[in-house]
Amino acid sequence: MNSFGNKFRISIFGESHGKSVGVIVDGCPAGISLCEDDFITDLLRRKSGAKGTTTRIEGDIPLIKSGVFNGKTTGAPILIEFENQNTRSKDYSNLIKHPRPSHSDFVAQKKYNGFQDYRGGGHFSGRITLGLVAAGVIAKKIISDIHITATLTQVAGNTNIDEEINNAIKNKDSVGGIIECVAKNMPIGLGEPFFNSVESQISSLAFSIPGIKAIEFGVGFAATKMTGSKFNDAIIDKKGTTKTNNAGGINGGISNGNNLIFRVAVRPTASIYSKQETYNFENNKIETLKIKGRHDLCIALRVPVIIEAITAIALADFSL
Amino acid sequence: MNSFGNKFRISIFGESHGKSVGVIVDGCPAGISLCEDDFITDLLRRKSGAKGTTTRIEGDIPLIKSGVFNGKTTGAPILIEFENQNTRSKDYSNLIKHPRPSHSDFVAQKKYNGFQDYRGGGHFSGRITLGLVAAGVIAKKIISDIHITATLTQVAGNTNIDEEINNAIKNKDSVGGIIECVAKNMPIGLGEPFFNSVESQISSLAFSIPGIKAIEFGVGFAATKMTGSKFNDAIIDKKGTTKTNNAGGINGGISNGNNLIFRVAVRPTASIYSKQETYNFENNKIETLKIKGRHDLCIALRVPVIIEAITAIALADFSL
Amino acid sequence: MNSFGNKFRISIFGESHGKSVGVIVDGCPAGISLCEDDFITDLLRRKSGAKGTTTRIEGDIPLIKSGVFNGKTTGAPILIEFENQNTRSKDYSNLIKHPRPSHSDFVAQKKYNGFQDYRGGGHFSGRITLGLVAAGVIAKKIISDIHITATLTQVAGNTNIDEEINNAIKNKDSVGGIIECVAKNMPIGLGEPFFNSVESQISSLAFSIPGIKAIEFGVGFAATKMTGSKFNDAIIDKKGTTKTNNAGGINGGISNGNNLIFRVAVRPTASIYSKQETYNFENNKIETLKIKGRHDLCIALRVPVIIEAITAIALADFSL
Amino acid sequence: MNSFGNKFRISIFGESHGKSVGVIVDGCPAGISLCEDDFITDLLRRKSGAKGTTTRIEGDIPLIKSGVFNGKTTGAPILIEFENQNTRSKDYSNLIKHPRPSHSDFVAQKKYNGFQDYRGGGHFSGRITLGLVAAGVIAKKIISDIHITATLTQVAGNTNIDEEINNAIKNKDSVGGIIECVAKNMPIGLGEPFFNSVESQISSLAFSIPGIKAIEFGVGFAATKMTGSKFNDAIIDKKGTTKTNNAGGINGGISNGNNLIFRVAVRPTASIYSKQETYNFENNKIETLKIKGRHDLCIALRVPVIIEAITAIALADFSL
Repeated sequence: MNSFGNKFRISIFGESHGKSVGVIVDGCPAGISLCEDDFITDLLRRKSGAKGTTTRIEGDIPLIKSGVFNGKTTGAPILIEFENQNTRSKDYSNLIKHPRPSHSDFVAQKKYNGFQDYRGGGHFSGRITLGLVAAGVIAKKIISDIHITATLTQVAGNTNIDEEINNAIKNKDSVGGIIECVAKNMPIGLGEPFFNSVESQISSLAFSIPGIKAIEFGVGFAATKMTGSKFNDAIIDKKGTTKTNNAGGINGGISNGNNLIFRVAVRPTASIYSKQETYNFENNKIETLKIKGRHDLCIALRVPVIIEAITAIALADFSL
Repeated sequence: MNSFGNKFRISIFGESHGKSVGVIVDGCPAGISLCEDDFITDLLRRKSGAKGTTTRIEGDIPLIKSGVFNGKTTGAPILIEFENQNTRSKDYSNLIKHPRPSHSDFVAQKKYNGFQDYRGGGHFSGRITLGLVAAGVIAKKIISDIHITATLTQVAGNTNIDEEINNAIKNKDSVGGIIECVAKNMPIGLGEPFFNSVESQISSLAFSIPGIKAIEFGVGFAATKMTGSKFNDAIIDKKGTTKTNNAGGINGGISNGNNLIFRVAVRPTASIYSKQETYNFENNKIETLKIKGRHDLCIALRVPVIIEAITAIALADFSL
Repeated sequence: MNSFGNKFRISIFGESHGKSVGVIVDGCPAGISLCEDDFITDLLRRKSGAKGTTTRIEGDIPLIKSGVFNGKTTGAPILIEFENQNTRSKDYSNLIKHPRPSHSDFVAQKKYNGFQDYRGGGHFSGRITLGLVAAGVIAKKIISDIHITATLTQVAGNTNIDEEINNAIKNKDSVGGIIECVAKNMPIGLGEPFFNSVESQISSLAFSIPGIKAIEFGVGFAATKMTGSKFNDAIIDKKGTTKTNNAGGINGGISNGNNLIFRVAVRPTASIYSKQETYNFENNKIETLKIKGRHDLCIALRVPVIIEAITAIALADFSL
Repeated sequence: MNSFGNKFRISIFGESHGKSVGVIVDGCPAGISLCEDDFITDLLRRKSGAKGTTTRIEGDIPLIKSGVFNGKTTGAPILIEFENQNTRSKDYSNLIKHPRPSHSDFVAQKKYNGFQDYRGGGHFSGRITLGLVAAGVIAKKIISDIHITATLTQVAGNTNIDEEINNAIKNKDSVGGIIECVAKNMPIGLGEPFFNSVESQISSLAFSIPGIKAIEFGVGFAATKMTGSKFNDAIIDKKGTTKTNNAGGINGGISNGNNLIFRVAVRPTASIYSKQETYNFENNKIETLKIKGRHDLCIALRVPVIIEAITAIALADFSL
């Protein structure tokens, strides 16, 4: 299921080393101004090139193929496509024999009976998140009154992020991190009780991003150490402002007008340059694997803009 | 949106103090044995009556209204209904004026323009989870090879749970806790990349349970403090068994055959018997509120069976 | 799949001779007045008792189990249940051996491996349309500006309907008919291009009614004998009124503000009291079957209100 | 809503005079051989160029952008794109002022507040059915045991189709027709009771094709003139073969193993070259319009392969 949403509906496609990746956005209202340049800021934030990111650098040029006319959305489906250009596919030829630890290689081989495109993780690649970022740019225009900011707050448990990136480079290892997202100027009443709660929709999208292993809203796990008298957020004015915001702006699955706050955990990148044990499915022995290809050593550096995108997608879907 | 699922589809209904609560399960295969007695074990685990739970004790008798014939499912929708009996609705009459802190009272009032059934939280009540437990009983029969166990591992940060319940009773306060869920004997290949990943579907359902504020899979947030060389789970045999299971049995959103492991955070119950500040929407002043009605002081005590249920629902939906 | 709709969502359940039949309506806005009496008029129009209809007469008392509080909808799911009372289930015991011609007996036996509730057609029974009528009553309140009227215009090809009913009674045979539905005061812009066109949604619902075999919008099949210069509906004022209405009020799948017009064909009831050939699956011989039970001989008499209901359901779903 | 399907899911995009049109197919099993050449036969059948079709001739070259690797489907979404090449967009500039009779111009203008791409009908164009044909090619591979054939049986009420095309050319008018579709070697049990009946899904898709105004299954409207004793299809062997097939191979919404048969009505093309009345929304007067651009005068000539495609899509969705 590569589609998400009830009113603002996205469908993603593509493979890391295929011809292109992208997204169809269906349900976007007519009359919103949209051009290729609108995507640049967010795409650059997702882009590689910085220390700790992969040396595969793609142009990431968004092509709007449909749904926009005279610079405005038409109400028809919007296809945004990104052509893949800088691929070196021969690097991946031995992943069937030795699946990379903690990567999708093994499950993809089993689930798709060996027919998956295994080059660079194929459809499981983080590259597919380009479509999420593109959809997020459109979603942000729909909920333009809400201001969403996601920030990498720690890497490897350290708020000095640069230090940990340097360590990882030195050790040929990889690191993860925590990203905090805050949405300000939230309206009251987004979300539905139960299956389409704000938390349900955001978490569902967040876990569609490769590498996310946890999410918490408001104080999250820390709530379990608080008593109700400390945790409860007292309303202090008629707009519904609360004295504290331990709930992260959500009660009963519905936004209460206070800031929406959540954090996600990004695991360390699965691909590392130091040697690892893995199973050789040809000779049925445990062997040592040295991963080739070009990889991020801290994918968390590139994830904040994707977290903003999925937040905007969820909120746009609620608000339409 | 009170429905969930693609193949195993559930639709919940009801209010805390209405006539009944329950669920329709659509998509259940024909030929599965099912009778009212099958629900007893799980319903009893969810039931109140123990120390720390509400004094409102309901019969929770499941009535199978459709979809079962001669003791077997027919393939048609299964309606399971629970009549409400032990309600004292006059307790709730003043919640519009003074919404309870961290409860759904305020957002429901705004979202439904005052037409919501406010008695006992109405459709936002934890009582609606009876339908989830009932659907979970059916789901468990569909995935009977998988063994799911959810356990309350800490209350108020303490593994001595009884001690914390006593403290809360003494202090007229409430407490939360952490529940860990393990599914053993998992097949390889459940879940889809991206929006229907195992994590996406389970988290989406978990956050539909009132009071859940966080979820983590495998080592979860702790992954952010590990390097890739420590986090990565090495495959050690041809079945795909991994030496460690830091990923919680999921790679690329898809089950890898190892145990599925996740934890959720249950916040302290919003309703407490000690006095709290809240806003009075009639006179526009901050006032002191003393909550009436009957409430759990540790809802986490009753949640493990609900977590099992939603896990079974998600896995049944994938496996059909 | 027993659910339909994107915003106004209905889920039906029940069997002809089970405990009850009914519907959950999810997505109904809060604040609409609703009580059991509101259903009476439409339920009476669907009811049996008239000449040509079955002698099984059910109370058809609607029970509102959830979603209504103080006489108004709350925004939560509305469960409407009808208990079955006047059932004589022993009549149906031999349908497995000799499936009734043109009935669902054979396909149900194959599809559900013999586990279907075969009594009175089980979940395939026309009795399940009670849920559609109930949902239609609610839908009509949502689109109260639109006036929908469905009329039985011919039976057995004759506009003298009474004459054909008498013939069928005399011949122990059954007859079908044509129902025309007109929705007046339509807004412009309901429907979506392609898969959610007005025609797609209405036809999808119409064919969910047992016995419907055809549908045509506007002049329908007759359009194929007209030239474009005759068929095209010229716009004659700025509201979009057209001189003719051959398109039945829909262009490009979208309502154009003129009357929505369509017709459906109801086949003759499958159950007839005269003898018929059928296959005996026990002795593998073609045999003569005489159907027992109580049946309509012209189900078309009871269908107009169901056609109105599904039209209202489709339009309510578009208009929310 | 530009998506359809539960398991075999299609999402269409594009505009007549935009950059491209196409489809994403999600849910296609892995391991099916697929290359661009596989689309040629069906695309040629849809193509213009014959007498009675438009002089706009497009290359209609399918580009497989994702979801295929080493000549086989991978299980990931398949994007098929067709670039538009032969467009003359200046032809359409005055459609806002004078909407073409019986075309989508007027409703699109109202629904999308003037932001629609009006060139050549934009997203309402029959050109978007290229995506349906492409998805149909893939669907046919999934249900390769079923043989689907759609045939244009009459034009303008005449089985001598060539004669009617010549008349229309001579008169600068347009004509419609009837297409009959037969699916042979059907399995028993496809479809679901009620909302996902075989008729519901096929009709829903059929009405998404521009210009379809009616559909009938089996004998369709003629059923209303038959008595039950004539209409009922007697089962005559243990495979469920029926003596007659008045029901068109469907009982209770479910395929009964006999041939699936249905017919659709294609109205005469809205665009004709002779003068027509229409409303001028600038000066608020009824005026005479002469349509420019290049158009089919009998779109029905190109529709059979689209009808086969939507039948295959519906059946593939059921059979997965």
